[in-house]
Amino acid sequence: MAITGDQRLLKRINRMALVRLVRSQPGLSRAELSSLTGLTKSTVSLLVQELIDDGWLCEDSILVTGAIGRRPTPLRLDGQRLVLIGAELGIGSMCVVRMSLDGCILGQEYAEFSVQTDADSVLGMLADLLGRQVELVGTENRHLLGIGIGVPGSVREDVGILVVAPNLGWRNVPVKLTLETALLKRGLVDIPLFVQNDCDVAALGEVEFANSAVGDPLLYLGLGVGVGAGVVVGGRLLLGATGFAGEVGHIQLQADGPRCSCGRSGCAEAYFGLRSMAQSIHCDVEELQTKVKAGDSAAIEVLRAGGKHLGMLMHNLWVTLDPGAIVLGGQTCSLGNYFVDSARSTFNELAHAANLEVPPVTESRFGSQAVATGAAALVLHELLLPI
Amino acid sequence: MAITGDQRLLKRINRMALVRLVRSQPGLSRAELSSLTGLTKSTVSLLVQELIDDGWLCEDSILVTGAIGRRPTPLRLDGQRLVLIGAELGIGSMCVVRMSLDGCILGQEYAEFSVQTDADSVLGMLADLLGRQVELVGTENRHLLGIGIGVPGSVREDVGILVVAPNLGWRNVPVKLTLETALLKRGLVDIPLFVQNDCDVAALGEVEFANSAVGDPLLYLGLGVGVGAGVVVGGRLLLGATGFAGEVGHIQLQADGPRCSCGRSGCAEAYFGLRSMAQSIHCDVEELQTKVKAGDSAAIEVLRAGGKHLGMLMHNLWVTLDPGAIVLGGQTCSLGNYFVDSARSTFNELAHAANLEVPPVTESRFGSQAVATGAAALVLHELLLPI
Repeated sequence: MAITGDQRLLKRINRMALVRLVRSQPGLSRAELSSLTGLTKSTVSLLVQELIDDGWLCEDSILVTGAIGRRPTPLRLDGQRLVLIGAELGIGSMCVVRMSLDGCILGQEYAEFSVQTDADSVLGMLADLLGRQVELVGTENRHLLGIGIGVPGSVREDVGILVVAPNLGWRNVPVKLTLETALLKRGLVDIPLFVQNDCDVAALGEVEFANSAVGDPLLYLGLGVGVGAGVVVGGRLLLGATGFAGEVGHIQLQADGPRCSCGRSGCAEAYFGLRSMAQSIHCDVEELQTKVKAGDSAAIEVLRAGGKHLGMLMHNLWVTLDPGAIVLGGQTCSLGNYFVDSARSTFNELAHAANLEVPPVTESRFGSQAVATGAAALVLHELLLPI
Repeated sequence: MAITGDQRLLKRINRMALVRLVRSQPGLSRAELSSLTGLTKSTVSLLVQELIDDGWLCEDSILVTGAIGRRPTPLRLDGQRLVLIGAELGIGSMCVVRMSLDGCILGQEYAEFSVQTDADSVLGMLADLLGRQVELVGTENRHLLGIGIGVPGSVREDVGILVVAPNLGWRNVPVKLTLETALLKRGLVDIPLFVQNDCDVAALGEVEFANSAVGDPLLYLGLGVGVGAGVVVGGRLLLGATGFAGEVGHIQLQADGPRCSCGRSGCAEAYFGLRSMAQSIHCDVEELQTKVKAGDSAAIEVLRAGGKHLGMLMHNLWVTLDPGAIVLGGQTCSLGNYFVDSARSTFNELAHAANLEVPPVTESRFGSQAVATGAAALVLHELLLPI
């Protein structure tokens, strides 16, 4: 009997549901999957065998027990055979990581560029890094599922166009097409490639590579030169009508506040964007970092004051979105605890004034690689989406 | 052949998909529905006949045309046979409406109460109003689909408990159970009853009773004594981890701003909640309304200043959520244009400073009945949700 389009779709949905279940509950057996999904045991067996053949799942070695009979075989994600590549296109730097399905970093490469460089040259550099990582996947005898790119601006995800990246000065750059063309020249074809905003992919990284249940909605705040948010609700990104959702660096924290690079005043980014904080003590970002490491009291005070405003932003996003968890990431988090501690205490004070408890606030487990690993998670996310 | 659980679910999904399609494109024929859904013509015919029998759809009278052969019969929502009841439980007043599937108000009743009244007495009053409207549905020979209640606070929707309504001073009130018990005493049983936050249901009203495509995300702002938001994304409410999402009246617009009733300072509600605005010129809400109608310049200036802060709030929610449309509703909107015009111009100025265009901003088409009609829409929303 010929398989119809509907049946193919249903099969895909069921396959991906099984992967998600095994991922969230490693060790499930085929029988348990059958009772959890309502699928017959023979359907589950068939699909699980396919998923094992394709490299998604593997069987845990059967434990020898004293019990009579064969113990049901526990299943888990296969961390060996399939690979995801993720890249952060940052403001003056780029990072590419090679990752396993279960969230381990297998390899990475880093490069810097001047923010004055034109988009084509920067994407050419990125394609070189990507190409090398793709070739490494081949030499390791693994299979590449796809490439994800996190970019510092808003994206039309259907076509992979970066609409505007203020801190790079880019507008309407066809990131997906440019990279695909460059990879084609290296003979690398038919690799699924996805492009999304940096904070959005970092939020996905927290969800897709989580070791245990994560808060829903999950709010990721990216804190660096730019300030932005990624929100995952019910397993999906909150992107807004035009892909601009999460531009929280331009939430106005005070009507007559300091001038922001966007033309407005009092934006969050004007208070605690890394460049704004550096400028407020007449230095650049690198100098600020040096001063903080040297224990310079003025620099530390700038971070503390910036953190207070971050606390106010966290509060405002909390009452708006009621996130189940807040995750902080980005360059500013790595400047010691002055900034984050100050933010936490302002956030707590505001909540306690209203007799409320804040949700859990953590720092990204992937640290400075939150965006690159998140971009790898974007591939997984797109492939595991039911429809 | 016996019908399985899966088939029942699939049938329900397909029925509701057909209703949604006919609602958004009145005049579709069975053949067109078949090609839009991929369902066979015989399945569509069967389901459409059931939907006609059940009162959801009707056939438009066939137009006499010069063409040869029978013209396909256009279908549309039936506005005659099925009824939705919606209620707003407000701060000192309640309103119950009887509505048709296509968003016409068939009847309504209004009552006031002192905010000092205990929850049980207020819900008793509401049950009386609901009971009368339910009985009217019967005398008109129509069929009631269900009752929706919009309440001024956060809700645990699975059990219909109002967790906290600060402006009523209520905590953990079992609204659903109390009303169901009161209706039972009138012999009214088995009526589906849904409870949700007032701004959330008003947002649903804009989506479910829309005459044409609406923005997505849709952001509804409820402006009265309390200030709150309802957000519909991809056809679903954004409720947050604990049902508190949309508490935007407590977004802090300035760190050292005026004291709010919640215990914090500088909250949006402290700037332009109706009671806060009245208190700022030493009067109560009714006196403020009288003054504004009389053209009192101090009262008008208070509204204009409040509107500026609303503009800032709209801006902050815009950069966070990127709504496709913003809808304003609530008591404050009906105090002439001073408030809303001032908000619009602040919002536009902020966007233009960054060279951006704001999304469409309109006032709710249901005016002061946005919550009651929205509560009726909640019933439709729950019944039309695929799963």
